Amino acid sequence: MQIAFIGLGNMGGPMAINLIKAGHSVKAFDLSQDALAKVKAEGGQAAASAQDAVQGAEAVISMLPASQHVEGLYLGSGNLLASIAKGTLVIDSSTIAAATSQKVAKAAEGLGLDFIDAPVSGGTGGAIAGTLTFMVGGSDAALERARPLLEKMGKNIFHAGTVGAGQTAKICNNMLLGILMIGTSEAISLGVANGLDPKVLSEIMRRSSGGNWALEVYNPYPGVQEASAATRGYTGGFGTDLMLKDLGLSQENAAAVKASTPLGALARALYAAHSLAGHGGEDFSSVIKMLQKNG
Amino acid sequence: MQIAFIGLGNMGGPMAINLIKAGHSVKAFDLSQDALAKVKAEGGQAAASAQDAVQGAEAVISMLPASQHVEGLYLGSGNLLASIAKGTLVIDSSTIAAATSQKVAKAAEGLGLDFIDAPVSGGTGGAIAGTLTFMVGGSDAALERARPLLEKMGKNIFHAGTVGAGQTAKICNNMLLGILMIGTSEAISLGVANGLDPKVLSEIMRRSSGGNWALEVYNPYPGVQEASAATRGYTGGFGTDLMLKDLGLSQENAAAVKASTPLGALARALYAAHSLAGHGGEDFSSVIKMLQKNG
Amino acid sequence: MQIAFIGLGNMGGPMAINLIKAGHSVKAFDLSQDALAKVKAEGGQAAASAQDAVQGAEAVISMLPASQHVEGLYLGSGNLLASIAKGTLVIDSSTIAAATSQKVAKAAEGLGLDFIDAPVSGGTGGAIAGTLTFMVGGSDAALERARPLLEKMGKNIFHAGTVGAGQTAKICNNMLLGILMIGTSEAISLGVANGLDPKVLSEIMRRSSGGNWALEVYNPYPGVQEASAATRGYTGGFGTDLMLKDLGLSQENAAAVKASTPLGALARALYAAHSLAGHGGEDFSSVIKMLQKNG
Amino acid sequence: MQIAFIGLGNMGGPMAINLIKAGHSVKAFDLSQDALAKVKAEGGQAAASAQDAVQGAEAVISMLPASQHVEGLYLGSGNLLASIAKGTLVIDSSTIAAATSQKVAKAAEGLGLDFIDAPVSGGTGGAIAGTLTFMVGGSDAALERARPLLEKMGKNIFHAGTVGAGQTAKICNNMLLGILMIGTSEAISLGVANGLDPKVLSEIMRRSSGGNWALEVYNPYPGVQEASAATRGYTGGFGTDLMLKDLGLSQENAAAVKASTPLGALARALYAAHSLAGHGGEDFSSVIKMLQKNG
Repeated sequence: MQIAFIGLGNMGGPMAINLIKAGHSVKAFDLSQDALAKVKAEGGQAAASAQDAVQGAEAVISMLPASQHVEGLYLGSGNLLASIAKGTLVIDSSTIAAATSQKVAKAAEGLGLDFIDAPVSGGTGGAIAGTLTFMVGGSDAALERARPLLEKMGKNIFHAGTVGAGQTAKICNNMLLGILMIGTSEAISLGVANGLDPKVLSEIMRRSSGGNWALEVYNPYPGVQEASAATRGYTGGFGTDLMLKDLGLSQENAAAVKASTPLGALARALYAAHSLAGHGGEDFSSVIKMLQKNG
Repeated sequence: MQIAFIGLGNMGGPMAINLIKAGHSVKAFDLSQDALAKVKAEGGQAAASAQDAVQGAEAVISMLPASQHVEGLYLGSGNLLASIAKGTLVIDSSTIAAATSQKVAKAAEGLGLDFIDAPVSGGTGGAIAGTLTFMVGGSDAALERARPLLEKMGKNIFHAGTVGAGQTAKICNNMLLGILMIGTSEAISLGVANGLDPKVLSEIMRRSSGGNWALEVYNPYPGVQEASAATRGYTGGFGTDLMLKDLGLSQENAAAVKASTPLGALARALYAAHSLAGHGGEDFSSVIKMLQKNG
Repeated sequence: MQIAFIGLGNMGGPMAINLIKAGHSVKAFDLSQDALAKVKAEGGQAAASAQDAVQGAEAVISMLPASQHVEGLYLGSGNLLASIAKGTLVIDSSTIAAATSQKVAKAAEGLGLDFIDAPVSGGTGGAIAGTLTFMVGGSDAALERARPLLEKMGKNIFHAGTVGAGQTAKICNNMLLGILMIGTSEAISLGVANGLDPKVLSEIMRRSSGGNWALEVYNPYPGVQEASAATRGYTGGFGTDLMLKDLGLSQENAAAVKASTPLGALARALYAAHSLAGHGGEDFSSVIKMLQKNG
Repeated sequence: MQIAFIGLGNMGGPMAINLIKAGHSVKAFDLSQDALAKVKAEGGQAAASAQDAVQGAEAVISMLPASQHVEGLYLGSGNLLASIAKGTLVIDSSTIAAATSQKVAKAAEGLGLDFIDAPVSGGTGGAIAGTLTFMVGGSDAALERARPLLEKMGKNIFHAGTVGAGQTAKICNNMLLGILMIGTSEAISLGVANGLDPKVLSEIMRRSSGGNWALEVYNPYPGVQEASAATRGYTGGFGTDLMLKDLGLSQENAAAVKASTPLGALARALYAAHSLAGHGGEDFSSVIKMLQKNG
């Protein structure tokens, strides 16, 4: 299938390459020549512009940093949507505001395009390995059209609801993750301040009612798990500033729908303070430093 | 074995009965004649006082509501510890301040007694079924002496560390649980306010990085899980006021060791507000009501 | 002076009338015929549209509910800015995102207009009495042009900085107010739960280091101050939902500049919960109910 | 009057000396010989023990660090209360748990003594200058007996209620102060992150509804007020760890009476994190560092 892929960053690049490896013909665009070169080296085509990329495409996939980029790409001065052939499938995998997904979807549907929002989780590692999780918003039919492509890039595909629901599901999940990580950090730090062994306490809580994903595979205390970001100095993994962005989206959304998320709101403020203290580039589990002596 | 059992409430009563059923000779004491009668009906002996109960006992087990009761029992005017034969094993299963456990343990050890703190989780259901989880603080030797008894009352036995560590592990775990439940409630409520189906969103998060014990077996949204407290009107389960007590202990402890637990501190305040609004007797997962329209 | 006034709600209506009373010629526009009628009854002119209102105006004043309305008015399909004569002074008194003020200002300046953002505090009472506080963002020159008009509607005029600074100052102030009110409510409620007299405690704190505006003139405990919203059943005053809107703007702003405002974030979540519980239309000091028995 | 003064720390020492300067005969006790020497140099007598100090005293004043010290002094093995002549006035100016004040008061009253709790605010500077604020719990009669002495050491004397009410009023006030300081820090930091001048913004808020004691006399932003702790590098003033202690008392109290203080609870956690990061010895207004770049 002929695919236009727009946005070849740390996530988009490997995703495009996985499509190429699966036998698809990918015409990609990015402002970075380096990023384009990497995809070309794997057998992709470098487009001269987004407009160029979508010519002849049966599916368009975008992976951009934030709401304004997605809105700018599809609805901005270039008016990309109008250049896409009627009936084409458009998949936006960026993590952005649900309201922006819905705005673009509405315009796309008006032009006879099938649009889904399909943000991912799983990080750079998952993008490279093709094991991402997709949270999809859109019609059943559009998702079924997209499924064969998504399966080349990911392992789990969840249908969250209508357009925008993928975004909402992702920020709900990541808000909860942001809370779990701080909560787990607090519990371990409190135990350690009382003289408990972090490994013993972590194992007790993991097998009790405090059990959660962070204790399972992402323990924030160095040395408790061999493969955790904490054990390798909080490098790699999911950066504090990325968590901060997702929590910002959750709070923007909460304000828009008048929801109350006290722990989520506080979690954003704590990651923000952690970032201000210079830890924005470290893995988000480094937030435990804020709760320990000599932070 | 001859066992003194002091405190026959909703938890202590069934625990004592399980020891009787396992063939032990139990001499029990409680201020309530009803509670004593129940244990007697199962083959136990009713003691006239705590002093009476410990006469001839090879092991003493206590299950009381709060720190002051445990301190009063063992160190108060009755001076119960001095009435217990040298070499006896003393197991306190109350959930109290770690500092109180350590104070009693020190006095007990000075009199040649073996003391462990062994608070439980698992609720009334677990107490009746004999499937409680014990979090134990004390020496290896004392725990091994206690193990055959604990195994009659529970399924999982964790050795958290030296005396007081059982209490610390329990409040760390329950603080984390209190956070998980509010965080999960926030995530589901935010999704629902955006039009998502609570069941679909719960399942997505359960299988993603937001996964935690609440999503697994204790979903706070009515109807998502058939057997949850939420689905049966927030009855049964673990009451808001019990969670409030445990979070109070976690904050007392955090103040004592100068620890910082921002989400834990906030969680206590939120359950307290929920209790003030009249929900203290409901299951703690009813805290989700605070985040939904018309409270 | 010939003035166009757009937006005649609870605030805008009385502001326009104060300008008329001061001798200005006001041509007003609002979608509500009732609102227009009131202004007409005081000697103003009713415009058929915003376009109509700005014809011949030496100054344009707008007072609208939210960012999207201001952006829609000035930059939307009607392209109102282009209809305003070069050199005209434009005053936007709406409370909106600073970024929106800046966007409109940039467009206005490109067309040779003088633009200031001048959000107000002081409530409906202040609007009627002409005692509002204006927080102004814009050039010294533009503010000096505006001052004679602002002085007809308000008492205090603060120059916060360049365009957008009025909005920022207002949300900073109102975020702090939102925090003060909850903090004061917590302190009084804690004292009362300990048996203290709310009047005595309020007076002690007012004259000590806990002193703040809420204790001075807006005590949240019924009966402490004769003229407070609390004493008249939390009617009148500044509604919970208005505070919620301002706190939402503060959090949107914090996310945009990566600031950390833990108490401000939590305050928004608490007012949101209070609104969900059915108190959105009551004065915001009713948030104290959340901290008291039987909510 | 013959006065026994027990506890000659940074606060107690200057308080005792002010009583001497006012013509009273002070027999003082402290474990530190240095502290005793200073009081002796001003004309006081050094007692060999607390028991010695209270012999012949018409009034006993204590100023100790924490609940356990006050309980140990009056009710501990030395049983000091029994050594105090019937009818003597006992003033405890320590900042401790209200419950401890009440426990000591009950024992004192049983022995025919007049007891008041009279914790202070105003810091070391106020202790030296004799301008402290006293918040008093006890009977009218006992307070009137104490007033002439309190007036030698302080300027404002508030009668908060019955015994323990002085302590409660103090922790309510200081909890509110702890919240005001963080809230003010957040508002200023948010403004500065948006390019506003901290001095201009502080002045606007001081004169608006955000006005509070911190903006009035204790601005946390360096350079805004010449005499503030912030401007002199956060030295002197009221230390982070002292605020942390008072907030810990407020949370202990909130747990005991089942009160909900969300902002107070969070404030304690934030000062605790600030202390863990190494700022425990700095003035508490340094908490603003947590909200600024490179904190």
